[in-house]
Amino acid sequence: MKPTDMAKEGTEMTEETEHMIEKNGAKETEHLVSAGDTKEMRAVILSGFGGLNKLRVTKKAMPEPQEGEVKIRVKACGLNFLDLMVRQGNIDNPPKTPLVPGFECSGIVEAMGGNTKGFEIGDRVMAFVNYNAWAEVVCTPLDYVYNMPDDMTFPEAAAFSMNFVAAYMMLFEVANLREGMSVLVHSAGGGVGQAVAQLCSTIPSVTVFGTASSFKHEAIKDSVTHLFDRNADYVQEVKKISPEGVDIVLDCLSGENTGKGLGLLRPLGTYILYGSSNMVTGETKSFFSLAKSWWQVEKVNPIKLYEENKVIAGFSLLNLLFKQGRCGQVKTVVEKLFSLYNQKKIKPVVDSLWALEEVKEAMQRIHDRGNIGKLILDVEKSPTPLMASDSTETSEAGEEEEEHEGDSDNKERMPFIQ
Amino acid sequence: MKPTDMAKEGTEMTEETEHMIEKNGAKETEHLVSAGDTKEMRAVILSGFGGLNKLRVTKKAMPEPQEGEVKIRVKACGLNFLDLMVRQGNIDNPPKTPLVPGFECSGIVEAMGGNTKGFEIGDRVMAFVNYNAWAEVVCTPLDYVYNMPDDMTFPEAAAFSMNFVAAYMMLFEVANLREGMSVLVHSAGGGVGQAVAQLCSTIPSVTVFGTASSFKHEAIKDSVTHLFDRNADYVQEVKKISPEGVDIVLDCLSGENTGKGLGLLRPLGTYILYGSSNMVTGETKSFFSLAKSWWQVEKVNPIKLYEENKVIAGFSLLNLLFKQGRCGQVKTVVEKLFSLYNQKKIKPVVDSLWALEEVKEAMQRIHDRGNIGKLILDVEKSPTPLMASDSTETSEAGEEEEEHEGDSDNKERMPFIQ
Repeated sequence: MKPTDMAKEGTEMTEETEHMIEKNGAKETEHLVSAGDTKEMRAVILSGFGGLNKLRVTKKAMPEPQEGEVKIRVKACGLNFLDLMVRQGNIDNPPKTPLVPGFECSGIVEAMGGNTKGFEIGDRVMAFVNYNAWAEVVCTPLDYVYNMPDDMTFPEAAAFSMNFVAAYMMLFEVANLREGMSVLVHSAGGGVGQAVAQLCSTIPSVTVFGTASSFKHEAIKDSVTHLFDRNADYVQEVKKISPEGVDIVLDCLSGENTGKGLGLLRPLGTYILYGSSNMVTGETKSFFSLAKSWWQVEKVNPIKLYEENKVIAGFSLLNLLFKQGRCGQVKTVVEKLFSLYNQKKIKPVVDSLWALEEVKEAMQRIHDRGNIGKLILDVEKSPTPLMASDSTETSEAGEEEEEHEGDSDNKERMPFIQ
Repeated sequence: MKPTDMAKEGTEMTEETEHMIEKNGAKETEHLVSAGDTKEMRAVILSGFGGLNKLRVTKKAMPEPQEGEVKIRVKACGLNFLDLMVRQGNIDNPPKTPLVPGFECSGIVEAMGGNTKGFEIGDRVMAFVNYNAWAEVVCTPLDYVYNMPDDMTFPEAAAFSMNFVAAYMMLFEVANLREGMSVLVHSAGGGVGQAVAQLCSTIPSVTVFGTASSFKHEAIKDSVTHLFDRNADYVQEVKKISPEGVDIVLDCLSGENTGKGLGLLRPLGTYILYGSSNMVTGETKSFFSLAKSWWQVEKVNPIKLYEENKVIAGFSLLNLLFKQGRCGQVKTVVEKLFSLYNQKKIKPVVDSLWALEEVKEAMQRIHDRGNIGKLILDVEKSPTPLMASDSTETSEAGEEEEEHEGDSDNKERMPFIQ
């Protein structure tokens, strides 16, 4: 993959981070810092790309808002499959480590730089951040900050931002979901999958086909019209029910699934690739497997699209926000989504809340596909005693990431949950 | 390209045609047949793939409507760039010759088969036909027949069907044209180009970039925001005005233009391929150039679409209608378009009217890009004396298609006007 501005921005931030760590290295501690301490804050640090042992909670210098930025006292952060890919370094042109992971959070406005009209101290907000979300305090440009609905909780807001915005834009702006259409979504039990299912339910007579691990079926069966086991041959399963195929395929798998997805489209149907989990391997850092995936991905002949009247699209919310400057369009989408939330038509599904110190267990859970809905880091939560022993800072050497049995078979089908 | 059902249908029709010709061969004549003659009719025949000399007007057995079919006394037929490709045999799996070309017409209902509710004798109608349109009488299933607005003339209706339906579906169903967006269309002076420009004008603040031969600019300048000469480097010209690119690219050129078009897209923009005129060469029949174009066309990596947030689509109205059975959806679009016509928001641009016997001159005009708007075959028109000498039936041997000077340079940029 090519170098990206987003990655460059990440690199710059990381250099700043390194500087801060240098200054504050001697003060690092595992102890909680009180919210009143204005000089330091707790944050999750990724010390290098690799396994879970590369993550730890440490103290960092408190960031201060620059011109146009909002300083947020963070209450909750979203954890996405993408964060696992970042941890492995399995993303395009990864930024330098150490870094603070995380792309979304919710909290309370604590201060503002100049030119931040529309926000006041004490506002309850939801925000996108280009890394650095998993911390007690975050500063981010006001274009990425939204005042939350009164009824929305902080965990809900942190579960809302990436998943619902991505699902909405894919269904209604990239594709053109209308009454009577059908949608196929993988990982129907995940954050994006549940957002897709709920948004589909706001349009009459939409059929949702979903794949998910069988143990989740009971929990999510009401949100999806037809559920298949994630190891089933979904192409055959869909065709049994709808021989004509479907109108929209949302794919977070890539690779051979692109051809399968395109093959399942009805005329004028849209296939959207919103992740590329084939890039995730069992290796902790695998540049060569990344390059191989890039070159081996199935390419599409435009004339075949012409003959078959089909549409193929790619969607990356982070690139849209941080590389391509589409904050205004995303803001409009957030307003529409908040309206749907206030009408009680949609509601983020929170799988579980984790303390910052429990980030490893949380990552393992998403890795093992144990979650139904979104995993949230609850910044004010204390680690549960049993789990805390596994998740506090550990030595960097000699600890290998534990992989569950059987995972190696399934890695290439892992979702990349935005 | 792969065999298609549409082509198969065409083949079957052609076999029927051959049978009819066999029966009526002895009766062939150049003289006009009166409208009252119920046994025979005039039609344009393509005797074999090749140059203009393969076209002639002859008499054929009158078709009679089958179950579900409407019999139409044709008043006007549309002539599209696609008909030139058919003549050359430069289409996917071409049907057998001899055949009657033409995919659209307008006229008056003269009879109906069983189960043709909604139509009555004397109705003024617009229709799609899967070949066989260029004749005095056409039978086609009622799904492809639409009652015309009272104010619409027959030439307007024949200029309306393919161009406006294709333009509408591309802009509003494949892409999602909204206020403030920008559109690039090639051959802005052609039938599709003019339909696109008019439909864009129904949405506030849409910017239309168009390419067209310079001599057309004066005539069409009011319909297009920014006009470029068709030999100009349109990528550079667009970027000078809009460095960010455009939201929708409509491409009838294919080949290297696919990459150029994708490169011009803004994030979340849509590139639509609706023709592949690189398949048209100077040769009268060129299987190898066809195969070469197919393989050499630029393929698209879905992961690049993901990184760049882009959409690529193909659109073929004929495949949608005759292979993919989307008549219902097209009917809804026709209704919306008739409503826009009745509100005087759109009006087909007719370039010129030609007698059936003048089909060669008409084809030469579209080949030379002389037209602004649509060329129409006016079935009741008598050939003008001067032109008639060139366009009546000629011997099949020894006559080569006349190519205008300089055409060979421009062939690969010829439009495939749907």
